[in-house]
Amino acid sequence: MRFISEQRLDDDVLEREFTLGEIPGILWTSGSASAPAPLVLVGHPGGLRAMYPRLVARARQSVANGFAAATIELPGSGDRPRDPAAEQARADLRWALEAGEPVGDEIVDALVLPLVEKAVPEWRATLDALLALPEIDGPVGYSGGVIAIGVRLAAIEPRIVAAGLFAGSFVPRATFDDARQVTIPVHVLLQWDDEWNDRQQALDLFDALGSREKALHANMGGHTGVPAHAGDDAATFFARHLK
Amino acid sequence: MRFISEQRLDDDVLEREFTLGEIPGILWTSGSASAPAPLVLVGHPGGLRAMYPRLVARARQSVANGFAAATIELPGSGDRPRDPAAEQARADLRWALEAGEPVGDEIVDALVLPLVEKAVPEWRATLDALLALPEIDGPVGYSGGVIAIGVRLAAIEPRIVAAGLFAGSFVPRATFDDARQVTIPVHVLLQWDDEWNDRQQALDLFDALGSREKALHANMGGHTGVPAHAGDDAATFFARHLK
Repeated sequence: MRFISEQRLDDDVLEREFTLGEIPGILWTSGSASAPAPLVLVGHPGGLRAMYPRLVARARQSVANGFAAATIELPGSGDRPRDPAAEQARADLRWALEAGEPVGDEIVDALVLPLVEKAVPEWRATLDALLALPEIDGPVGYSGGVIAIGVRLAAIEPRIVAAGLFAGSFVPRATFDDARQVTIPVHVLLQWDDEWNDRQQALDLFDALGSREKALHANMGGHTGVPAHAGDDAATFFARHLK
Repeated sequence: MRFISEQRLDDDVLEREFTLGEIPGILWTSGSASAPAPLVLVGHPGGLRAMYPRLVARARQSVANGFAAATIELPGSGDRPRDPAAEQARADLRWALEAGEPVGDEIVDALVLPLVEKAVPEWRATLDALLALPEIDGPVGYSGGVIAIGVRLAAIEPRIVAAGLFAGSFVPRATFDDARQVTIPVHVLLQWDDEWNDRQQALDLFDALGSREKALHANMGGHTGVPAHAGDDAATFFARHLK
């Protein structure tokens, strides 16, 4: 892990860009904390630069709650090399959506499964590197982003003790198998009228999660209309489980 | 409204039992507040005496948040005269449940609709009396209890500005019509494995609510297993809307 830039944001949050091999990422920590902090991994749909305003807002809330926060670029997004098969799957998806066709399982599988296979080891390697820093010690929470990645990480990464998931992306069938393996506390956010999301599938996925403690918070509005109080509830969830 | 007893609970909550005509009720206010407070109406399934421990816990939380809280006995429950038709419907329901039969719409309608017709005017008359007290001035929230009563009150009582509903009781078909008339912010609590509740029906009722701001919070567990943090979330909802 190599830090390549550092700036202090106005609320005493230290923002450092880093690379881990070819993967770009951002780490946010308190500029004034003396003890090592728990960590929230900030998920997203890909494209760090475009997502930055929302990511930094979530990271600031985490730092304000006493945590460090970090994110990495997804494979094939942002400045990372494109994957021709993923690009084809994305084109198929766009075509189906524009034509008003149902999005078939094979399109979702082709788009999301290779992403999960590549991204999950990258998040875990990032976790190795972050937990080696003196300012971070865990426990670790994972928050948001592509739900299939979040569910896989929640199922297999023992250092992640709580997951906040956003039911706002296409779900491969295999993710239901992952969901049944999840046992950590899970907080699922659902936008009731999400135009990119099948509501019944989101409810079924919530039902499939194996966790004894799980909560579904559904709010009105579309994909990007998550109300501020929903973010507050998610922050409360992490505050409860990462201390 | 006639006050018939008064005691000061140990956290400076003033608890007064009252009667409004033949209806018994309880009012909880801060023992030290100087300004008139907003009011939370504390709903329940009937039987003030049996429900008292849970009611007083909810009332204390409301008072701690700067509100007054009040409840009244439901028609046909507690010490109030039994209604033969309601008793018959209750027996039919118990029989269906014990026999493992589906609970038909006609049983639910016979049990719940007359209750809504009687209880709603009583809550509204109670509201008239409570809002005439110098220590209370509104706005008013309604919380929990028989969901058909809560939905009807939310639909027709203009002094109620926010409703916290518990999807844990049988829902007559007519309640869906009421739900579509609701426009105030609504916070719905659903126990995912509630043994007294049809999950799909609860989701459909949430969907039917006409409110622009509505949230569904689903948690694991049965009817009485509502986690403490779900109560905190509901309190946050009222804090947001009753100030």
